[in-house]
Amino acid sequence: MASKPSIPKGTRDFSPTEVAKRHYIMQIIRSNFEKFGFQPIETPSFENSDTLMGKYGEEGDRLIFKILNSGDYLAKANAAHLENKDSIKLTSSISEKALRYDLTVPFARYVVQHQNEIEFPFKRYQIQPVWRADRPQKGRFREFFQCDADVVGSASLWQEVELVQLYDTVFTALGLKGVTVKINNRKILSGIAEVIGASDKLIDFTVALDKLDKIGEDGVKKEMIEKGISQDAIQKVQPLFHFTGTISEKIEKLSQLLASSDEGTKGVAELRFICENSAKLGLSTAILDLDVTLARGLNYYTGAIFEVAPPQSVAMGSIGGGGRYDDLTGIFGLKNMSGVGISFGLDRIYLVLEELQLFPETVTATTQALFINYGDAEALYAMQAMQLLRQAGIKVELYPDNAKMAKQFQHADRRGIPYAVIAAETEIATKSFALKNLATGAQIVVDFECLKAVLLQN
Amino acid sequence: MASKPSIPKGTRDFSPTEVAKRHYIMQIIRSNFEKFGFQPIETPSFENSDTLMGKYGEEGDRLIFKILNSGDYLAKANAAHLENKDSIKLTSSISEKALRYDLTVPFARYVVQHQNEIEFPFKRYQIQPVWRADRPQKGRFREFFQCDADVVGSASLWQEVELVQLYDTVFTALGLKGVTVKINNRKILSGIAEVIGASDKLIDFTVALDKLDKIGEDGVKKEMIEKGISQDAIQKVQPLFHFTGTISEKIEKLSQLLASSDEGTKGVAELRFICENSAKLGLSTAILDLDVTLARGLNYYTGAIFEVAPPQSVAMGSIGGGGRYDDLTGIFGLKNMSGVGISFGLDRIYLVLEELQLFPETVTATTQALFINYGDAEALYAMQAMQLLRQAGIKVELYPDNAKMAKQFQHADRRGIPYAVIAAETEIATKSFALKNLATGAQIVVDFECLKAVLLQN
Repeated sequence: MASKPSIPKGTRDFSPTEVAKRHYIMQIIRSNFEKFGFQPIETPSFENSDTLMGKYGEEGDRLIFKILNSGDYLAKANAAHLENKDSIKLTSSISEKALRYDLTVPFARYVVQHQNEIEFPFKRYQIQPVWRADRPQKGRFREFFQCDADVVGSASLWQEVELVQLYDTVFTALGLKGVTVKINNRKILSGIAEVIGASDKLIDFTVALDKLDKIGEDGVKKEMIEKGISQDAIQKVQPLFHFTGTISEKIEKLSQLLASSDEGTKGVAELRFICENSAKLGLSTAILDLDVTLARGLNYYTGAIFEVAPPQSVAMGSIGGGGRYDDLTGIFGLKNMSGVGISFGLDRIYLVLEELQLFPETVTATTQALFINYGDAEALYAMQAMQLLRQAGIKVELYPDNAKMAKQFQHADRRGIPYAVIAAETEIATKSFALKNLATGAQIVVDFECLKAVLLQN
Repeated sequence: MASKPSIPKGTRDFSPTEVAKRHYIMQIIRSNFEKFGFQPIETPSFENSDTLMGKYGEEGDRLIFKILNSGDYLAKANAAHLENKDSIKLTSSISEKALRYDLTVPFARYVVQHQNEIEFPFKRYQIQPVWRADRPQKGRFREFFQCDADVVGSASLWQEVELVQLYDTVFTALGLKGVTVKINNRKILSGIAEVIGASDKLIDFTVALDKLDKIGEDGVKKEMIEKGISQDAIQKVQPLFHFTGTISEKIEKLSQLLASSDEGTKGVAELRFICENSAKLGLSTAILDLDVTLARGLNYYTGAIFEVAPPQSVAMGSIGGGGRYDDLTGIFGLKNMSGVGISFGLDRIYLVLEELQLFPETVTATTQALFINYGDAEALYAMQAMQLLRQAGIKVELYPDNAKMAKQFQHADRRGIPYAVIAAETEIATKSFALKNLATGAQIVVDFECLKAVLLQN
């Protein structure tokens, strides 16, 4: 191979620094998931195709990565589709497996498959990569991690209250203050559709309403009319154009607006329960806000909907989202399993922490001291000390070769290693070590216990 | 979907207990890799096919999972191969990507691709899944994790000494005492081949010699002759049939036996360096042993070869292996990069720890206390306490629904949660909590600080 090797578009190599930062975020998410009683599961990277296909719509089916059958796959290929060169139809006869597209469908499959071993309500979390054949662009990759926490088997709204707490706890632990947890409810959206008398126009309506800040009330109304929403309907939901105030005030407005809709009224009650109890418990650093334009995954969710926006100083889309779904496992034949869950967007959280310089320095702390190599006898003396230092939890390395001093010190410098340990003839004779601070140049001669103490403190 | 869903053969779902145990092993491996100065990298799950194909031999090429191109893949399919229904030849025109087969080739690709950003010698570790279309059987899966540590850019034998230390350190930390780190050297095998005058018979020779314990000296010799190794050759290496004693004694025997081979003599010197320095440093719980029949990956390694056997009480194959390779990155155009590395076999280590009951109980520790749900007012009181307990790092849960007491307690029992916290009208009135030990049935009434203290201690 003559040309320099590369990786597929939309995928990434992660350097040591990047891995350390990503693990830092995952570890905080993981430990807080567990504090809230979520238990980890892991599912295979690929599923049987019929587990995934048809679960994400036509677009999703197209974006699922299919794995070619092993061996003589053409022997079982559908002859007619092969003849017609019909790629789409041929696929199912030459590919039986596919890479998972999200963690939700595999979770539903897991719950149904293992229903007899699971104690419900089942609180699970899952932190694993997913793959999508999307067109790669800034912040969108073909391989990326999802971090999901879901509860199935209980309709209790206390779960929603806890999930708001969980968002607040994780982002507080990450030092990311001032995120906004936006909340809405699918039933409120249904109520609005009912009131405007146009269920099929609901998405057009929320998309237009969402532009209020940008194009003003007149602009929004103009767009709504262009989309076929009547003047009369717009008049009925006029309060949504001045939808300000505290959450309580907003809920009050909605309550009046949706009084004629049973579904809408139910949504208001759910929202009130979640918001009132969240207020009583309090949030550390996050802000809870009601956003009636929030409409993610309309077909999927049936109750509360969540989305998390980063602090306003950062120009970035949502860094988390989720909601309540009444029938997740129904697709695999297990009915009446209400569930609710949230997800953390690892890649975007990474970018936000990077932009705001919120990664603690210790996260990328590498080897603490490099032992300089003066030859085999000295290296053995160094290794004996290193063995004990490592037992004390200290990260140390020996420069592997007896290279020129300048080269060895340069290596420590380029690696960002803070200390060099010099143990040559003189030091060995006195059972000591010269410890050099590579930032200041200061050098002290110490015995082993002192060496250990200094490295433990730094 | 009517039938119960399933997963592809050779893949696995991991339950919460299994995930916890696997993470425990990985965490110990990871933290010790870092103590030894290895830095983590991660590479994409799939690589361009030409990065992987042809690197693992014909058998390997067959076992690599290929990903079908997205969209109208048949439009670019090779017409002749399609016409002839030649599955093998057609593959490259309908599949450009493939799942990684191991971590070594992607690592070599990473080093070459990022050579200008890397400071050499480069000590990297990588813990990620790999995929092989192997026939699944006990202990062999189509998706499994590899845990690799390698150093590239230095020929120093101190690396080999450190890798022996690393094996000892990790297995000691896992509580797995008495593993045998078997060592050999590719140059010694070359020397033996030279001495017996039959390089092409080397594998037959080592395979036969390895059966010494089972079929005895006569049996081994009979097999060697059947394989076409001459009486004369067998006579020349007669000492290998009584190859016992300490490592030093074995090295002495080899030194004499291979005196006529430059390559063999070099191998003996390398082996002596590694073994003597390992002896001077000492091993905590592992045993280092020289095994001249050890011949893993003959074509791949060029110096030391390692393999780790579990304690003799466990019937299980090797739980780790590795060695020195002089030209890993040459396949991607970067010459003269000597490397050496070892791998830990996660799945087998898991089975060994399970069999010997070496997983600490705390590994699978789940939620510490379940708060019983007596209704919304009581739940809010519980949640307020839980919020503070979680801030103190304690894992607690609220039973989500106001279900019958028996059902709630049964849930705690089935989940293995050790405590229930009862906070009903009486407790709320006195700002207290009844804490029930579910194993003993003992119940005490305490204030919040005491509740926290007890849970922190348990």
